[in-house]
Amino acid sequence: MKDYAAGGFTLPGEAGYEQLTLEMAKKWGADVIRDSDGTKLSPEITEAGYRIYSTICIIREHNEFARSHPDAQQQTFLFSEPQTALSETLVIHPLDGYFDEQFEINDSAEAMAYWQVWDRTENRILSDKEWEYADGRVTVNHCTLYHRYSVSFLAWRIWEEINMYNHTTNHWQSEHLRQLDPRHPEAWKYLQDWLRNWCEHNPDTNVVRLTSLFYNFVWIFGSDMRRRTRFVDWASYDFTVSPAALKAFEQEYGYALTAEDFINKGRLQATHRPPTARKRDYMDFTQRFVAEKARALVDIIHSFGKEAYVFYDDSWVGMEPNGPYFASVGFDGLIKCVFSGFECRLCAGAEVPVHELRFHPYLFPVGLGGLPTFSEGGHPEEDAEAYWLHVRRALARQCVDRIGLGGYLHLTIGQEAFNDTIEGMAKDFRKLKDLHSQGAPAELPVTVAVLHTWGALRSWTLSGHFHETDWNPLIHINEALAGLPVRVKFIHFEDVKNGALKDTDVLINAGKAGDAWSGGDAWKSPEVVSEVTRFVAEGGCLIGVGEPSATEGGDSRFALAYVLGVDQDDGSFACHAPWEFAEEKAPFYTAKECVGKTEGIRVTGPDTQVLLACGNTPLMTLRSFGKGKAVYLGGFAYAPEAARMLLEMLLFLTGTDGSTAGLTDQPLAECAWYPESGTLVVMNNSSEPLDVNVTMPSGMTQVHIDAGEMRFVCVKE
Amino acid sequence: MKDYAAGGFTLPGEAGYEQLTLEMAKKWGADVIRDSDGTKLSPEITEAGYRIYSTICIIREHNEFARSHPDAQQQTFLFSEPQTALSETLVIHPLDGYFDEQFEINDSAEAMAYWQVWDRTENRILSDKEWEYADGRVTVNHCTLYHRYSVSFLAWRIWEEINMYNHTTNHWQSEHLRQLDPRHPEAWKYLQDWLRNWCEHNPDTNVVRLTSLFYNFVWIFGSDMRRRTRFVDWASYDFTVSPAALKAFEQEYGYALTAEDFINKGRLQATHRPPTARKRDYMDFTQRFVAEKARALVDIIHSFGKEAYVFYDDSWVGMEPNGPYFASVGFDGLIKCVFSGFECRLCAGAEVPVHELRFHPYLFPVGLGGLPTFSEGGHPEEDAEAYWLHVRRALARQCVDRIGLGGYLHLTIGQEAFNDTIEGMAKDFRKLKDLHSQGAPAELPVTVAVLHTWGALRSWTLSGHFHETDWNPLIHINEALAGLPVRVKFIHFEDVKNGALKDTDVLINAGKAGDAWSGGDAWKSPEVVSEVTRFVAEGGCLIGVGEPSATEGGDSRFALAYVLGVDQDDGSFACHAPWEFAEEKAPFYTAKECVGKTEGIRVTGPDTQVLLACGNTPLMTLRSFGKGKAVYLGGFAYAPEAARMLLEMLLFLTGTDGSTAGLTDQPLAECAWYPESGTLVVMNNSSEPLDVNVTMPSGMTQVHIDAGEMRFVCVKE
Repeated sequence: MKDYAAGGFTLPGEAGYEQLTLEMAKKWGADVIRDSDGTKLSPEITEAGYRIYSTICIIREHNEFARSHPDAQQQTFLFSEPQTALSETLVIHPLDGYFDEQFEINDSAEAMAYWQVWDRTENRILSDKEWEYADGRVTVNHCTLYHRYSVSFLAWRIWEEINMYNHTTNHWQSEHLRQLDPRHPEAWKYLQDWLRNWCEHNPDTNVVRLTSLFYNFVWIFGSDMRRRTRFVDWASYDFTVSPAALKAFEQEYGYALTAEDFINKGRLQATHRPPTARKRDYMDFTQRFVAEKARALVDIIHSFGKEAYVFYDDSWVGMEPNGPYFASVGFDGLIKCVFSGFECRLCAGAEVPVHELRFHPYLFPVGLGGLPTFSEGGHPEEDAEAYWLHVRRALARQCVDRIGLGGYLHLTIGQEAFNDTIEGMAKDFRKLKDLHSQGAPAELPVTVAVLHTWGALRSWTLSGHFHETDWNPLIHINEALAGLPVRVKFIHFEDVKNGALKDTDVLINAGKAGDAWSGGDAWKSPEVVSEVTRFVAEGGCLIGVGEPSATEGGDSRFALAYVLGVDQDDGSFACHAPWEFAEEKAPFYTAKECVGKTEGIRVTGPDTQVLLACGNTPLMTLRSFGKGKAVYLGGFAYAPEAARMLLEMLLFLTGTDGSTAGLTDQPLAECAWYPESGTLVVMNNSSEPLDVNVTMPSGMTQVHIDAGEMRFVCVKE
Repeated sequence: MKDYAAGGFTLPGEAGYEQLTLEMAKKWGADVIRDSDGTKLSPEITEAGYRIYSTICIIREHNEFARSHPDAQQQTFLFSEPQTALSETLVIHPLDGYFDEQFEINDSAEAMAYWQVWDRTENRILSDKEWEYADGRVTVNHCTLYHRYSVSFLAWRIWEEINMYNHTTNHWQSEHLRQLDPRHPEAWKYLQDWLRNWCEHNPDTNVVRLTSLFYNFVWIFGSDMRRRTRFVDWASYDFTVSPAALKAFEQEYGYALTAEDFINKGRLQATHRPPTARKRDYMDFTQRFVAEKARALVDIIHSFGKEAYVFYDDSWVGMEPNGPYFASVGFDGLIKCVFSGFECRLCAGAEVPVHELRFHPYLFPVGLGGLPTFSEGGHPEEDAEAYWLHVRRALARQCVDRIGLGGYLHLTIGQEAFNDTIEGMAKDFRKLKDLHSQGAPAELPVTVAVLHTWGALRSWTLSGHFHETDWNPLIHINEALAGLPVRVKFIHFEDVKNGALKDTDVLINAGKAGDAWSGGDAWKSPEVVSEVTRFVAEGGCLIGVGEPSATEGGDSRFALAYVLGVDQDDGSFACHAPWEFAEEKAPFYTAKECVGKTEGIRVTGPDTQVLLACGNTPLMTLRSFGKGKAVYLGGFAYAPEAARMLLEMLLFLTGTDGSTAGLTDQPLAECAWYPESGTLVVMNNSSEPLDVNVTMPSGMTQVHIDAGEMRFVCVKE
């Protein structure tokens, strides 16, 4: 009998704690030991028979080169706070309000060519004759009185952002690390040489763990502590920009991008907003550049007989594991830190040999949001278990190859509860992995397509972790779907036009009006609207959440109002009385506390059934349209009960018998059925023991599960 | 000494209750007795020495003529509910969903020329060849599958709407009254003859009380009781339309209006939305027509030695007492029913010799919203007092000439409390009127301009009564202003361009994003934005409430964000961190419970003081800008405390000493000071007795006021 005691586990080793490292490696069944930021493993560890990961941040820790080649540093477009002209001459200090340890004005001739000065009141770009620049100041002469002016400019980024974060958060005192732009020819040559040299001098390393590639996600600091973080977006491309990139783009695409393509009236181009065609072009352009350069690095690593794994955070921009160029890089592994189930799916779905998850909490004194973990008042074992409840249900659907931890191992000393929790979790992970290796879990014949402007490129994620995007209903939907026994795909509006609904059973559109997830102006396309209408009329199912298909300029606020059976009054229907309705019992389990409210929702007619309401506002509705059905949800907050509601909704809408994948009789218990190995996995998502009946193809199985338990049951079919 | 026992009071007489009529006329000090809808006064009343009002609804009660001249009836544009084409041929019954006792399709040749069929999915109007009409059905051949189609058509209005309302609400069984369109030449001649004849046969009548003119406000009933009232707008012009009107318009303006100018993608042209230029033209055109025809009727009435008063509700559309043509009609009086203070100002400000208010509650068994008044469970005296608290503070600022009641007088039998209340109220009114006749109340040197797209045309009102528009913060602001000792004007955006801010001290913009009150696209004008910016920079004050100056397409959501010091995140700033702030004590009295919350509000910088917040959302802020100041309020709910807060805010912003108009030391007491007569009026807006100190130009005056009391105090200056 297998004991699942070891394998697939990456332990963060710690120099000075060699004995502990080897002890914990044994307890948790590690087969890999890795160094962490700023630590170097001793021979006692590297020679103990474990595989060794070594962490490299390729663009960082080259301060000497950066000092001698300041023009090889990375850049970004910034804009100055709009300033009102109270006299005819206005002097603007573009960098005012930005953190001057992060940014420095780039006033080189090639950069100045991209600067713009705007009259934002008029939305007019000033001609070069209307302003002048000298000594860090822009002077606008002959202003239009009382108009607002703003400067868009290029700035050097003189402090690598992750290093900057660690310094400012943890009060580090070491030298600020700079970052190099691989677009700079000399820097690129230098980086390759450096990597070769590194590989030569680190013969013990089996896996080079890149953290990560070249360009950080956008993270702009302000000078004022009352707004230290001005802007942060996990998936924006602003930090890839440079005159060199813009020129290369222009040469290839035949048109030039301008500062305004990035500045966007001061809003920047956030991932939460529908991308412009120009932004899509620029992203594709950058993705190809990143893939090409990454491939060169991977080739160097391979040439030393090492493997190359990459971390799916930090300087990951352009890498796009769900994009078209990722596989071409030739990475051997992808590592993702996870709090949530959707992040497991995000990683597991990438085209790469090895998928590894880094679990939370990190072995740090303080965790997320500043609360203690491995320090006085912390309960790291409770944190670990809470995240595990999210993660394991996703792993039960689609497994990864490895798990691991990060941080300072010595913090586990005396944390027996945590250490035991991780030991058990690692065993459960190995059992799941073993089950998957014998055959996939049973899946319902239901394909769900989540529709938004990004499609597959942003499969599962919005941008960043769950808690960074939890104001949007879609991340809750994604988290629920991550553990359901259905096929899930992420499609965009061009996909819809190109027939993506043909093999779709349920289409989901969730988000807020005008955002990238709801779709914004994409819903102005009659082709898209009529294709979704056809889909439902012919028997497809639609779930709309929040402000689905919301757009301006149509005869309804929701482009799909007449399919969904609900619309939203944005104020323009103030004189139109809403339909009265009576609440009807839902034909599926309803987790009332997980259904939210969107202001202004009204039913379009009496054939829309209201399944849940708050006063006069419908919260959940059901409508038949042609041969299909549509459900509207005012909001959706993830909880195990919400996932169960979504599952039952999918079963009801599609008329599917859930037992073919195994179906528990309780909202707080869910299961996965592995027919090849005859194993039923039943998960208790509650803190009470449960006696659960699971309906399966072969009949009913009774299972007792302890609070929080994941039980593996052998079932004869 | 004056006893204020009689005068300025209109009593609804009742046939069959002659004795009661005369008794109540004496108790309440009536000088006028009027008939009501459907009653006829007996000689015992008409010959008792009172002046007599007789009610006429000029366009109604001509069913015989209407039957013989069906094309003289009034019309409107309607649209069919959008219908999705599930096959290539779509049959639409345009009138489906409308109340067929109110509407009848107008398929005459001249009407059909105005019909339109729309592909609403594509926002495309179909050519005449693409559809055909026969027997009440529109057939669209060769539809684009899954597109939505809708028919815009003309319909006869075959049931006068007020009569329809009374029938359907009170289960009247009498014949449905029809209504004639004075644009129809024969109808017009008929109506004039009818009026002449009426005047001849009603020699006792002193005042012809027109209820009201020609065109009702828009009130569209549906066939389904779950949405009986489909659309209602107190100030829209849809019910004035006809082919004749459209042709006359085209001839005069040189361009043709179409169905879509009225249908507006099914939204119709509600008063709450910013008007198009075409709608403004059509309104002006209609106003001139209504004034011309009204003048002809008034001339007839005058020719019989009678006076003509007009009621400011029901078929009032086009009359516009605050419009440019009202005075030209030559009415002798204007009568407005009132619940609120703003309605008193609305009436009092019109250019007409006599202003009369009809108080609530009406002498009906059931009142507003179906609650009992003069029937079991009703407390009419409490209702009357509650409305009086709103009304009297407005009357203290600007008085009217007369008050009165409406309804069935016999319902007052046994209602001693109500009868005494009205008696006292009438006396207080007469005292106020007497004070005003001696000299105006002292006013602060503060001019407030309320800015919206309608300007003076919609002075004080939004559209309809307070309770019909109370979801909009502006009506609360207007109600508060109605009783404050400041000058108030209502201006529109063209006024701003034409210098209206020159004699303004405080500019108020209040409403919701995109509505007529906030201003919508009017804020896209750089001229308007920079003029308001100049105004504040040079020392003016700005108060923004709700979503002031909200518009799309700028660098901020609020066009005035950088003046106000707050902006709104509509989702496009999701990645931009808001400024942190600490709440600071307001430099004026704050009625916290009256300040509302608008989602997404953020301060634009650290120089905005947050005076009140709810979590991370500022509710009330203050900012200096140039030499001026700006206050933002997330919402504003009228209450006496809210009015006091607004007064103190105006005093603070303008640096004004409130005592020049008299200033109480308590939020629930307010006052008006009449210097000419040396009289201070102190009002207790609470249900507890108060001892109030009033600071006046001459010093402090102490006044005791009983719960709800309005006390008249003689003060030596």
